[in-house]
Amino acid sequence: MPKLPFSRAEYDARLTKTRNEMARRGLDALFVTDPSNMAWLTGYDGWSFYVHQGVLLTLEGKPIWWGRAMDAVGAGLTTYMTAENIRGYDDTYVQNPDKHPMEDLAHLIREQGAETFSIGLELDNYYFTAAAYLTLQQSLGCATFKDATGLVNWQRAVKSDTEIEYMRRAARIVEHMHGVIRARAEPGMRKNDLIADIYHAAISGAEGHWGDYPAIVPMAPSGMDATAPHLTWDDSPLRAGESTFFEIAGAYKRYQCPQSRTLFLGKPPQKYLDAEKAVLDAISAGLEQAKPGNMCEDIAHAFNQTLDKHGFKKDSRCGYAIGLSYPPDWGERTMSFRTGDKSVLEPGMSFHFMPALWLEDGGLEITEPIVITQTGAECLCTTPRALVIKE
Amino acid sequence: MPKLPFSRAEYDARLTKTRNEMARRGLDALFVTDPSNMAWLTGYDGWSFYVHQGVLLTLEGKPIWWGRAMDAVGAGLTTYMTAENIRGYDDTYVQNPDKHPMEDLAHLIREQGAETFSIGLELDNYYFTAAAYLTLQQSLGCATFKDATGLVNWQRAVKSDTEIEYMRRAARIVEHMHGVIRARAEPGMRKNDLIADIYHAAISGAEGHWGDYPAIVPMAPSGMDATAPHLTWDDSPLRAGESTFFEIAGAYKRYQCPQSRTLFLGKPPQKYLDAEKAVLDAISAGLEQAKPGNMCEDIAHAFNQTLDKHGFKKDSRCGYAIGLSYPPDWGERTMSFRTGDKSVLEPGMSFHFMPALWLEDGGLEITEPIVITQTGAECLCTTPRALVIKE
Repeated sequence: MPKLPFSRAEYDARLTKTRNEMARRGLDALFVTDPSNMAWLTGYDGWSFYVHQGVLLTLEGKPIWWGRAMDAVGAGLTTYMTAENIRGYDDTYVQNPDKHPMEDLAHLIREQGAETFSIGLELDNYYFTAAAYLTLQQSLGCATFKDATGLVNWQRAVKSDTEIEYMRRAARIVEHMHGVIRARAEPGMRKNDLIADIYHAAISGAEGHWGDYPAIVPMAPSGMDATAPHLTWDDSPLRAGESTFFEIAGAYKRYQCPQSRTLFLGKPPQKYLDAEKAVLDAISAGLEQAKPGNMCEDIAHAFNQTLDKHGFKKDSRCGYAIGLSYPPDWGERTMSFRTGDKSVLEPGMSFHFMPALWLEDGGLEITEPIVITQTGAECLCTTPRALVIKE
Repeated sequence: MPKLPFSRAEYDARLTKTRNEMARRGLDALFVTDPSNMAWLTGYDGWSFYVHQGVLLTLEGKPIWWGRAMDAVGAGLTTYMTAENIRGYDDTYVQNPDKHPMEDLAHLIREQGAETFSIGLELDNYYFTAAAYLTLQQSLGCATFKDATGLVNWQRAVKSDTEIEYMRRAARIVEHMHGVIRARAEPGMRKNDLIADIYHAAISGAEGHWGDYPAIVPMAPSGMDATAPHLTWDDSPLRAGESTFFEIAGAYKRYQCPQSRTLFLGKPPQKYLDAEKAVLDAISAGLEQAKPGNMCEDIAHAFNQTLDKHGFKKDSRCGYAIGLSYPPDWGERTMSFRTGDKSVLEPGMSFHFMPALWLEDGGLEITEPIVITQTGAECLCTTPRALVIKE
């Protein structure tokens, strides 16, 4: 039997929650392609999301894993499913312009007697392409397809105790990664050598817990490059008088704990210290609003109003839900801390409070992964909340 | 000015090749969402493909980068494009169920006078979702959309001298990574500690060249887990009497050089040695067919026939095109070494010859990245082609 990361009871509860929402939306079936949703529902874990695959769930019976034949073995090794509910398609369907794997899925759906069902699809999810949709539509003329983007993601919003424990382990790992940056970074060091050390810390893990791969690689731009949020690295040396932000995550059993800090080598100019003070005050103001019953936008408003008072502006969202994730995003793609997001906070929800500033001549990222508690919010990490200054 | 990885002349030649193919297919415009294609055409580099973005190319004029407003800065820093051809959409479009970024792209297409054009879309590409397509269709009722999946990928098939040089640097890196495995692996070592060392080698680089992130994380299953191709790692210790395959890649400036080797700790049973001999003979037979004028399937046939003679079988393709890549795949998604693929080999084409065997009780991967030369094929790596046995 596979060593599943959660109890069967927890998977059963997840299936029940998901089916309740399917029924509420009038869906007879749901085809789940988001690797995070596949893993959350079944335990499936493998880097096979570069080919078409998914989990087919109807209102009753067992879920069916469907994917490339060679990956059916991995489904047997990582899920609670047994052979009769694991279905592989022939390798000739793989990246072959002459045929599409969704033709095979259509057969399976017909075989299940589901060809006239109302079927939910994750229309705006990575790895569910336009061609996948068009092929299903063409192959199953009698089915009704409905958009179910985010349906499963929303069921994942409130974390179980075990999930939070995994995120705490990931938190220990990202703290360790930031410790390595503080210890090793110095002027003249090639950026990629520092990134190599960060990766080593990420995968070695912390406090005896092994590190899984983060869903995003380290983003670590310096100086003017740090005016852009998503650049990675090269071999340019770290320089005195320059800032570098490190947007990184620890991961444990696919649970992600992202946290960013900004390093300044040398004595920072006053404007950096002003920006730091603004962000720290704004984080405190945001955290005060992070409590059950408040809405996501309450955090954004408190954050932005405090930032405004200090004379800084941020146009983009300042946080998003986190948890189980696969590349290319460590966010859950449900709630965001921004005006208009009226999602109500509940205990067990987890977020990356991500109040990054990208200024005209550099970036400042000081961020906190948080979990909503019964009365407020808990920061998962103890990394010192400040600019990292090495003079 | 950004430090581009290629000369402007090389980018211009790429645009010309792509436009010639667009014209041949009757396309007035092409919207490119594959991050590898975006980078190949413009230089754009950043981990921003978790939001909707792309490059809009018409038959004349300059290409336009389009994406999230905060990433427009990165486009300015990593491409040859200037501000008037870099267009960012408002952050409220990001992961917001109430609106879709493609509504903004539709505005841009209309502004360009392209709303009645025949527009090519990468319908089966990661990151071009069904919802993206449906939104464009709804927003641009007078446009004609045609499938252009792989259009740009095919232009990338024959590599330039500079591209091959980058792949050679990536080859030095993956050789170094395999050297670290040979040196460090031993019974009792936690798998994740070995992966940490592999990552460190990958990013440190080799021969003075820095390591970029591979498009797939290390896959490194042991024992029965190695009967599945795409499992990653945990903290299980390496065991005597067990095999582990390491499917890994070196990367330099996003160019990928994947190579797999299989480690056996202890004395391998005869069946492993038989499988090794079968694969090595079959690789030699395949490589003999890897030359200009032959077809991709010629390599597969030679490989499979030799494997058959030894009493082994492989159902899946045994190779695919490689080059510039972003997650989730280091393949180019054009040619495959399999029956029916009649693509004709040309000098400068590059492949991962990937004759992996997944047996009933373990896996065997001994693979070779190759470049087609004027007369045959060159293996990019000098890693010893054999089982790695540590007794």
